[in-house]
Amino acid sequence: MTHQLDIARLLNDACGPDVVTPGPEVPERYRHDWAGLEPIEPAALVQPRRTEEVSAALRVCQANGIPVVPQGGLTGISGAAHPIADGIVLSLERMNKILSVDPLEATLTAEAGTVLETAQEAADEAGLMLAIDIGARGSCQLGGLVATNAGGHNVIRYGMTRDQLLGLEVVLADGTIVDDFNTLTKNNAGLDLKHLFVGTEGLFGIITRCTMRLHPGQTEKQTALIGCPDTDALLDLLARAKKSLGPMLTCFEVMWPSFYETMAERCGIRTAIEGKHGVYAILEATGGAGSMAREKMESLLENAFEAGCVADAVLANSVKEEHELWAVRETPAEYGAVIGQIVPFDVGVPTRQIPEAVRLFETRLKERWPDIIALSYGHIGDNNLHLVVHVPGQEAQPEQHVKELVYGTVRELGGTISAEHGIGLIKRDYMSYSRSPSQIRTMQLLKSALDPKGILNPGKGFDQIKTASA
Amino acid sequence: MTHQLDIARLLNDACGPDVVTPGPEVPERYRHDWAGLEPIEPAALVQPRRTEEVSAALRVCQANGIPVVPQGGLTGISGAAHPIADGIVLSLERMNKILSVDPLEATLTAEAGTVLETAQEAADEAGLMLAIDIGARGSCQLGGLVATNAGGHNVIRYGMTRDQLLGLEVVLADGTIVDDFNTLTKNNAGLDLKHLFVGTEGLFGIITRCTMRLHPGQTEKQTALIGCPDTDALLDLLARAKKSLGPMLTCFEVMWPSFYETMAERCGIRTAIEGKHGVYAILEATGGAGSMAREKMESLLENAFEAGCVADAVLANSVKEEHELWAVRETPAEYGAVIGQIVPFDVGVPTRQIPEAVRLFETRLKERWPDIIALSYGHIGDNNLHLVVHVPGQEAQPEQHVKELVYGTVRELGGTISAEHGIGLIKRDYMSYSRSPSQIRTMQLLKSALDPKGILNPGKGFDQIKTASA
Repeated sequence: MTHQLDIARLLNDACGPDVVTPGPEVPERYRHDWAGLEPIEPAALVQPRRTEEVSAALRVCQANGIPVVPQGGLTGISGAAHPIADGIVLSLERMNKILSVDPLEATLTAEAGTVLETAQEAADEAGLMLAIDIGARGSCQLGGLVATNAGGHNVIRYGMTRDQLLGLEVVLADGTIVDDFNTLTKNNAGLDLKHLFVGTEGLFGIITRCTMRLHPGQTEKQTALIGCPDTDALLDLLARAKKSLGPMLTCFEVMWPSFYETMAERCGIRTAIEGKHGVYAILEATGGAGSMAREKMESLLENAFEAGCVADAVLANSVKEEHELWAVRETPAEYGAVIGQIVPFDVGVPTRQIPEAVRLFETRLKERWPDIIALSYGHIGDNNLHLVVHVPGQEAQPEQHVKELVYGTVRELGGTISAEHGIGLIKRDYMSYSRSPSQIRTMQLLKSALDPKGILNPGKGFDQIKTASA
Repeated sequence: MTHQLDIARLLNDACGPDVVTPGPEVPERYRHDWAGLEPIEPAALVQPRRTEEVSAALRVCQANGIPVVPQGGLTGISGAAHPIADGIVLSLERMNKILSVDPLEATLTAEAGTVLETAQEAADEAGLMLAIDIGARGSCQLGGLVATNAGGHNVIRYGMTRDQLLGLEVVLADGTIVDDFNTLTKNNAGLDLKHLFVGTEGLFGIITRCTMRLHPGQTEKQTALIGCPDTDALLDLLARAKKSLGPMLTCFEVMWPSFYETMAERCGIRTAIEGKHGVYAILEATGGAGSMAREKMESLLENAFEAGCVADAVLANSVKEEHELWAVRETPAEYGAVIGQIVPFDVGVPTRQIPEAVRLFETRLKERWPDIIALSYGHIGDNNLHLVVHVPGQEAQPEQHVKELVYGTVRELGGTISAEHGIGLIKRDYMSYSRSPSQIRTMQLLKSALDPKGILNPGKGFDQIKTASA
């Protein structure tokens, strides 16, 4: 291993002035992401201004076996962007230019360090919409969204980040710049390389530019907060909403009483819906002019009420009311203040298993820790369940045991340990709970082909996990 | 190289009785696909009944360095399924069971040899829709659709085959069965392996099962045949249709006069639209009950007519009239009878370049061969252009020269030499016209990692192409 000072000097020679910061001077911001892990001082921080500087840095790292951790907006909660001691962190934040917005082709091309909100605004100015939206929109960057295949609120209608991605420019471990800069909807000339870099947390290459697909802007939006008697009724409502709203259904969020009633009480929110219900949902329908989103939403709710699958519903009449309906769903930012230290989960299970999954999580956790706080909510239309756990009265959360219980249950139900947050550092020990040995081995074979020295984000995701023979 | 009889014997020992047919007895059907290449007698035909037999066959082939050409419905026109002398053809046609249709999760799981039409019908019976449709629906198979990432009529709304694919089971070159059998919308646990096998024509593995996403069935359909004064007007109409129909726009087919007028005349079709126009389009809008597809289509056409971008339009009032509007567009099956031997193209260029592409193709071809017949049509909303060329009065078509002219023009315009038909044998020499050396080299590195002996469909697609150093 090359000495820390030598690393900084080598990189400085390759990248030129004002790009490399030696380890001790690296600001605190770059020493961790939002996963809550202990900060680490990297050997150096590299902040390239153009693709060629990324390439130059990687050539040095490959030649000297120096680990490279790519960093975007640092909002990930799985530790994929957490530094490695003796490795560099490579921040894309200076590469933040929007290169083009094309209204006719409905595409946006930007550097990887572009903040999501900036890209959303650029699409908006062209009368179009970038259909990715997550809470961290003001900090997260396009490259990170692609590298984690971020989900968010609109997945039920528009799909994940992968579905918004047309083309990429990436730099491979050996510094090769691969310009898979597609803007075409149809392009079947061999392997569609971009998929290697989607959701793989930097293990295959450093994303430097992306071309995203844009959609027509939506002018009408209807939001409803709904109480359902039980989860069977909820699944019935989901089927009805898919059928009657079709592609206008852009959001179907579900909150179990554990989450809804606990967070409303602890955050002092007067809920927009009266009484207590078996389960709560937020529906959104959007459309262009003349889509009659209001009429369709009203008709859906009336029919569902008559059929008994909706007990009560409130439809927003203004943007202010819309925010009121979302108020409880948007409390996760308050966990630290009103709950304390938490163990968060982001799992996926087939839709029909979701009610059973919640029942198993909550009862099994309570059997083991009777005082436990376990809050369940999620994007049910996308098979995605969030669960947040806090064991009161303990100095350190029994994280390992909670994880084994939850991920063990996910494995029983044939689900995935990561629906939208990725694997990073904090889930890697559980990869085999949702990927078979032959799958993991195949991922590793491909990784070795492109990064034979293993310098790209080593030890994250599926890298270096031991699997039983396939 | 193992002798032909030895190959059949080795495979017979591994796969059991009634699976292997020695070369001389292989029926004519398996000796070519629809690419029009000279038939080849393979060393043997292998027709497995289950995944384990595919695995057993591949282990034998890998151990003995025997090339393997996978075959589905044999409807491909790029030669990807064309046999290799001294290699086997591996037909999936006996693996044709639909394993499950799940209305709540909206998924269909079937063996790779299932014919598309059978899968469409199974989805339909469950009140859902498999959103892939191509002319060869009665013959083509799911595995082949995935391996070529087939496009078709509905791409503008639903995307390509890739977008309908949730999970796969594949067998790798060494016989390893990889069960990436996802049914979840969101699953971010490492590399999404299935994308390696989409559109790569069998170079990475043999697809044995697929799980497809289904969509709500569409009950309303409106079809219009339209004449536009010129291509500027046509692009204006496309923008209007996207905006006002939104996700109801399921089809936007374009026919230049070269195609429309020539084929109508030669096939003796009385066209549904009167007079001659600069360019012709077929629009389809579909929706569920209450979607008001009719009203929306009428309003779009009225506004477009007033704005001058539609010169004349006919809206179908019955299924019979719908077929009449499609009559000219569905004449490509008659090329052999009414045109003669053709050189077909399937290229992609950015939407705004499509008019220029057609102009360049047609004028450059006519400059070189004044009597040439060059017919242009395509799925303009997906950047996809088809061109069919016939040089009259020549015994053999000057195929090589026509290809160089057309693909050279595509390269100039930054397009792709294959939008939806794949590379196979017939386009491999032109890969470098739309893929850079670093892209091709990356594809080859990955291929070598999974198929180090190069037994899977050697010489097809991007395999073994020489590239200049990246």
